[in-house]
Amino acid sequence: MKKGDTFTIPFEVTEKVYRGFTDIFEDRNPLHMDDGYAKGKGFREKVMYGNILNGFISCFIGERLPEKNVVLISQDIAYAKPVYLNDRLELRAEVEDVHDSVGIVEFRYQFVNASGVRVARGKIQIRMI
Amino acid sequence: MKKGDTFTIPFEVTEKVYRGFTDIFEDRNPLHMDDGYAKGKGFREKVMYGNILNGFISCFIGERLPEKNVVLISQDIAYAKPVYLNDRLELRAEVEDVHDSVGIVEFRYQFVNASGVRVARGKIQIRMI
Repeated sequence: MKKGDTFTIPFEVTEKVYRGFTDIFEDRNPLHMDDGYAKGKGFREKVMYGNILNGFISCFIGERLPEKNVVLISQDIAYAKPVYLNDRLELRAEVEDVHDSVGIVEFRYQFVNASGVRVARGKIQIRMI
Repeated sequence: MKKGDTFTIPFEVTEKVYRGFTDIFEDRNPLHMDDGYAKGKGFREKVMYGNILNGFISCFIGERLPEKNVVLISQDIAYAKPVYLNDRLELRAEVEDVHDSVGIVEFRYQFVNASGVRVARGKIQIRMI
Protein backbone atom coordinates (compact mmCIF):
# COMPACT_ATOMS: atom_id res chain seq x y z
CA MET A 1 0.00 0.00 0.00
CA LYS A 2 1.18 3.51 -0.74
CA LYS A 3 0.06 7.03 -0.01
CA GLY A 4 -2.98 7.98 -2.07
CA ASP A 5 -4.31 4.42 -2.50
CA THR A 6 -8.09 4.45 -2.17
CA PHE A 7 -10.66 1.83 -1.18
CA THR A 8 -14.41 2.02 -1.71
CA ILE A 9 -16.36 -0.70 0.06
CA PRO A 10 -20.12 -1.16 0.39
CA PHE A 11 -21.71 -2.13 3.71
CA GLU A 12 -25.34 -2.52 4.66
CA VAL A 13 -26.87 -2.11 8.10
CA THR A 14 -29.08 -5.17 7.80
CA GLU A 15 -31.53 -6.50 10.34
CA LYS A 16 -28.98 -9.25 11.05
CA VAL A 17 -26.27 -6.72 11.86
CA TYR A 18 -28.58 -4.61 14.02
CA ARG A 19 -30.10 -7.53 15.95
CA GLY A 20 -26.74 -9.27 16.29
CA PHE A 21 -25.11 -6.14 17.70
CA THR A 22 -27.97 -5.65 20.18
CA ASP A 23 -27.74 -9.27 21.25
CA ILE A 24 -24.00 -9.38 21.87
CA PHE A 25 -23.37 -5.90 23.30
CA GLU A 26 -26.68 -5.50 25.16
CA ASP A 27 -27.09 -1.79 24.50
CA ARG A 28 -30.86 -1.34 24.67
CA ASN A 29 -30.88 2.42 24.95
CA PRO A 30 -34.28 3.57 23.66
CA LEU A 31 -32.61 5.62 20.92
CA HIS A 32 -31.68 2.28 19.32
CA MET A 33 -34.85 0.34 20.18
CA ASP A 34 -37.87 2.62 20.12
CA ASP A 35 -39.02 4.51 17.00
CA GLY A 36 -41.36 6.69 19.06
CA TYR A 37 -38.62 7.75 21.45
CA ALA A 38 -36.24 8.49 18.56
CA LYS A 39 -38.90 10.54 16.75
CA GLY A 40 -39.46 12.51 19.93
CA LYS A 41 -35.76 13.37 19.85
CA GLY A 42 -35.94 14.59 16.26
CA PHE A 43 -34.83 11.46 14.40
CA ARG A 44 -36.75 9.74 11.59
CA GLU A 45 -36.90 6.46 13.48
CA LYS A 46 -34.70 4.41 15.80
CA VAL A 47 -31.02 5.18 15.23
CA MET A 48 -28.45 2.48 14.52
CA TYR A 49 -25.50 2.02 16.86
CA GLY A 50 -22.54 4.15 15.82
CA ASN A 51 -20.27 1.29 16.72
CA ILE A 52 -21.73 -0.81 13.93
CA LEU A 53 -19.56 1.40 11.71
CA ASN A 54 -16.53 0.43 13.80
CA GLY A 55 -17.44 -3.21 13.16
CA PHE A 56 -17.38 -2.44 9.43
CA ILE A 57 -13.92 -0.92 9.95
CA SER A 58 -12.85 -4.26 11.44
CA CYS A 59 -14.02 -6.01 8.28
CA PHE A 60 -12.29 -3.43 6.07
CA ILE A 61 -8.94 -3.79 7.81
CA GLY A 62 -9.10 -7.54 8.36
CA GLU A 63 -10.58 -8.61 5.03
CA ARG A 64 -10.50 -5.97 2.31
CA LEU A 65 -6.88 -4.82 2.23
CA PRO A 66 -4.35 -6.30 -0.20
CA GLU A 67 -2.23 -7.17 2.86
CA LYS A 68 -3.59 -9.66 5.42
CA ASN A 69 -0.73 -9.44 7.95
CA VAL A 70 -1.96 -6.38 9.79
CA VAL A 71 -3.18 -5.34 13.21
CA LEU A 72 -5.16 -2.29 14.31
CA ILE A 73 -3.16 0.23 16.33
CA SER A 74 -5.71 2.99 16.80
CA GLN A 75 -8.83 4.42 15.26
CA ASP A 76 -11.20 7.30 15.74
CA ILE A 77 -14.65 8.17 14.50
CA ALA A 78 -16.78 11.30 14.50
CA TYR A 79 -20.50 10.78 13.95
CA ALA A 80 -22.06 13.46 11.76
CA LYS A 81 -25.51 12.18 10.78
CA PRO A 82 -27.77 9.33 11.94
CA VAL A 83 -27.68 5.89 10.31
CA TYR A 84 -30.95 3.96 10.04
CA LEU A 85 -31.87 0.31 9.62
CA ASN A 86 -31.25 -0.96 6.07
CA ASP A 87 -29.07 2.01 5.16
CA ARG A 88 -26.53 1.17 2.50
CA LEU A 89 -23.23 2.84 3.27
CA GLU A 90 -20.07 3.26 1.31
CA LEU A 91 -16.78 3.28 3.18
CA ARG A 92 -14.33 5.51 1.33
CA ALA A 93 -10.82 5.20 2.69
CA GLU A 94 -7.52 6.61 1.52
CA VAL A 95 -3.98 5.84 2.60
CA GLU A 96 -2.85 9.09 4.14
CA ASP A 97 0.63 8.11 5.19
CA VAL A 98 2.97 5.12 5.19
CA HIS A 99 5.82 4.85 7.67
CA ASP A 100 7.86 2.04 6.18
CA SER A 101 10.52 1.99 8.90
CA VAL A 102 7.96 1.01 11.56
CA GLY A 103 5.43 -0.71 9.29
CA ILE A 104 2.63 1.74 10.08
CA VAL A 105 -0.06 2.72 7.57
CA GLU A 106 -2.53 5.53 8.27
CA PHE A 107 -5.93 5.88 6.62
CA ARG A 108 -8.43 8.67 6.50
CA TYR A 109 -11.99 7.49 5.87
CA GLN A 110 -15.61 8.47 5.63
CA PHE A 111 -18.90 6.60 5.51
CA VAL A 112 -21.38 8.00 2.98
CA ASN A 113 -25.02 6.92 2.77
CA ALA A 114 -27.09 6.26 -0.36
CA SER A 115 -28.19 9.91 -0.44
CA GLY A 116 -24.56 10.98 -0.64
CA VAL A 117 -24.52 12.29 2.93
CA ARG A 118 -21.37 11.77 4.97
CA VAL A 119 -22.54 10.09 8.17
CA ALA A 120 -19.15 9.62 9.84
CA ARG A 121 -15.46 10.10 9.30
CA GLY A 122 -12.20 9.35 11.03
CA LYS A 123 -8.71 7.90 10.89
CA ILE A 124 -7.24 4.44 11.32
CA GLN A 125 -3.69 3.34 12.08
CA ILE A 126 -2.57 -0.20 11.37
CA ARG A 127 0.74 -1.98 11.71
CA MET A 128 2.15 -4.67 9.46
CA ILE A 129 2.95 -7.84 11.40
CA MET B 1 -22.72 14.01 35.48
CA LYS B 2 -19.85 16.23 36.53
CA LYS B 3 -16.14 16.42 36.00
CA GLY B 4 -14.30 13.76 37.98
CA ASP B 5 -17.20 11.26 38.09
CA THR B 6 -15.85 7.76 37.56
CA PHE B 7 -17.38 4.53 36.27
CA THR B 8 -15.94 1.05 36.62
CA ILE B 9 -17.73 -1.58 34.57
CA PRO B 10 -16.84 -5.25 34.01
CA PHE B 11 -17.05 -6.83 30.55
CA GLU B 12 -16.11 -10.30 29.40
CA VAL B 13 -15.04 -11.36 25.93
CA THR B 14 -17.16 -14.48 25.90
CA GLU B 15 -17.44 -17.05 23.14
CA LYS B 16 -20.86 -15.54 22.37
CA VAL B 17 -19.39 -12.07 21.88
CA TYR B 18 -16.51 -13.37 19.76
CA ARG B 19 -18.63 -15.64 17.56
CA GLY B 20 -21.40 -13.06 17.25
CA PHE B 21 -18.95 -10.38 16.17
CA THR B 22 -17.39 -12.70 13.58
CA ASP B 23 -20.81 -13.64 12.27
CA ILE B 24 -22.16 -10.12 11.82
CA PHE B 25 -19.04 -8.26 10.68
CA GLU B 26 -17.43 -11.10 8.70
CA ASP B 27 -13.85 -10.26 9.61
CA ARG B 28 -12.13 -13.64 9.28
CA ASN B 29 -8.57 -12.36 9.27
CA PRO B 30 -6.39 -15.25 10.46
CA LEU B 31 -5.18 -13.18 13.41
CA HIS B 32 -8.70 -13.56 14.82
CA MET B 33 -9.39 -17.12 13.67
CA ASP B 34 -6.22 -19.20 13.74
CA ASP B 35 -4.22 -19.85 16.92
CA GLY B 36 -1.27 -21.16 14.91
CA TYR B 37 -1.09 -18.05 12.74
CA ALA B 38 -1.36 -15.77 15.78
CA LYS B 39 1.40 -17.70 17.62
CA GLY B 40 3.60 -17.32 14.56
CA LYS B 41 3.12 -13.57 14.89
CA GLY B 42 4.14 -13.57 18.55
CA PHE B 43 0.73 -13.73 20.22
CA ARG B 44 -0.35 -16.33 22.80
CA GLU B 45 -3.29 -17.47 20.68
CA LYS B 46 -5.84 -15.91 18.33
CA VAL B 47 -6.42 -12.25 19.13
CA MET B 48 -9.87 -10.81 19.78
CA TYR B 49 -11.20 -8.03 17.56
CA GLY B 50 -10.26 -4.61 18.89
CA ASN B 51 -13.68 -3.38 17.91
CA ILE B 52 -15.30 -5.67 20.46
CA LEU B 53 -14.08 -3.04 22.95
CA ASN B 54 -15.92 -0.38 20.95
CA GLY B 55 -19.05 -2.51 21.28
CA PHE B 56 -18.55 -2.47 25.04
CA ILE B 57 -18.29 1.34 24.81
CA SER B 58 -21.71 1.32 23.15
CA CYS B 59 -23.12 -0.60 26.12
CA PHE B 60 -21.39 1.73 28.58
CA ILE B 61 -22.79 4.89 26.99
CA GLY B 62 -26.23 3.50 26.17
CA GLU B 63 -26.89 1.51 29.33
CA ARG B 64 -24.58 2.30 32.24
CA LEU B 65 -24.76 6.07 32.59
CA PRO B 66 -27.12 7.76 35.04
CA GLU B 67 -28.52 9.68 32.03
CA LYS B 68 -30.26 7.73 29.23
CA ASN B 69 -30.91 10.67 26.86
CA VAL B 70 -27.52 10.67 25.20
CA VAL B 71 -25.96 10.14 21.79
CA LEU B 72 -22.35 9.39 20.82
CA ILE B 73 -20.58 12.27 19.08
CA SER B 74 -17.09 10.86 18.70
CA GLN B 75 -14.75 8.31 20.16
CA ASP B 76 -11.21 7.09 19.78
CA ILE B 77 -9.29 4.07 20.89
CA ALA B 78 -5.61 3.14 21.02
CA TYR B 79 -4.86 -0.57 21.35
CA ALA B 80 -1.92 -1.28 23.65
CA LYS B 81 -1.98 -5.03 24.35
CA PRO B 82 -3.82 -8.03 22.89
CA VAL B 83 -7.14 -9.24 24.26
CA TYR B 84 -7.85 -12.97 24.22
CA LEU B 85 -10.97 -15.10 24.33
CA ASN B 86 -12.57 -15.20 27.79
CA ASP B 87 -10.57 -12.21 29.05
CA ARG B 88 -12.36 -10.31 31.75
CA LEU B 89 -11.89 -6.60 31.28
CA GLU B 90 -12.68 -3.63 33.41
CA LEU B 91 -13.69 -0.41 31.72
CA ARG B 92 -12.54 2.52 33.84
CA ALA B 93 -13.96 5.81 32.64
CA GLU B 94 -13.84 9.30 34.06
CA VAL B 95 -15.73 12.43 33.12
CA GLU B 96 -12.98 14.71 31.88
CA ASP B 97 -15.06 17.71 30.95
CA VAL B 98 -18.66 18.89 30.84
CA HIS B 99 -19.77 21.66 28.49
CA ASP B 100 -23.18 22.50 29.87
CA SER B 101 -24.01 25.16 27.29
CA VAL B 102 -23.92 22.62 24.45
CA GLY B 103 -24.78 19.50 26.46
CA ILE B 104 -21.47 17.76 25.71
CA VAL B 105 -19.75 15.39 28.14
CA GLU B 106 -16.22 14.09 27.53
CA PHE B 107 -14.82 10.92 29.03
CA ARG B 108 -11.35 9.50 29.22
CA TYR B 109 -11.27 5.72 29.58
CA GLN B 110 -9.12 2.64 29.70
CA PHE B 111 -9.74 -1.09 29.54
CA VAL B 112 -7.70 -3.12 32.03
CA ASN B 113 -7.48 -6.93 31.98
CA ALA B 114 -7.55 -9.31 34.95
CA SER B 115 -3.76 -9.10 35.23
CA GLY B 116 -4.01 -5.34 35.69
CA VAL B 117 -2.61 -4.62 32.23
CA ARG B 118 -4.09 -1.70 30.32
CA VAL B 119 -5.08 -3.14 26.94
CA ALA B 120 -6.61 0.00 25.41
CA ARG B 121 -7.45 3.59 26.16
CA GLY B 122 -9.19 6.52 24.55
CA LYS B 123 -11.74 9.27 24.78
CA ILE B 124 -15.49 9.52 24.17
CA GLN B 125 -17.69 12.53 23.51
CA ILE B 126 -21.44 12.35 24.02
CA ARG B 127 -24.23 14.85 23.73
CA MET B 128 -27.35 15.10 25.86
CA ILE B 129 -30.50 14.90 23.74
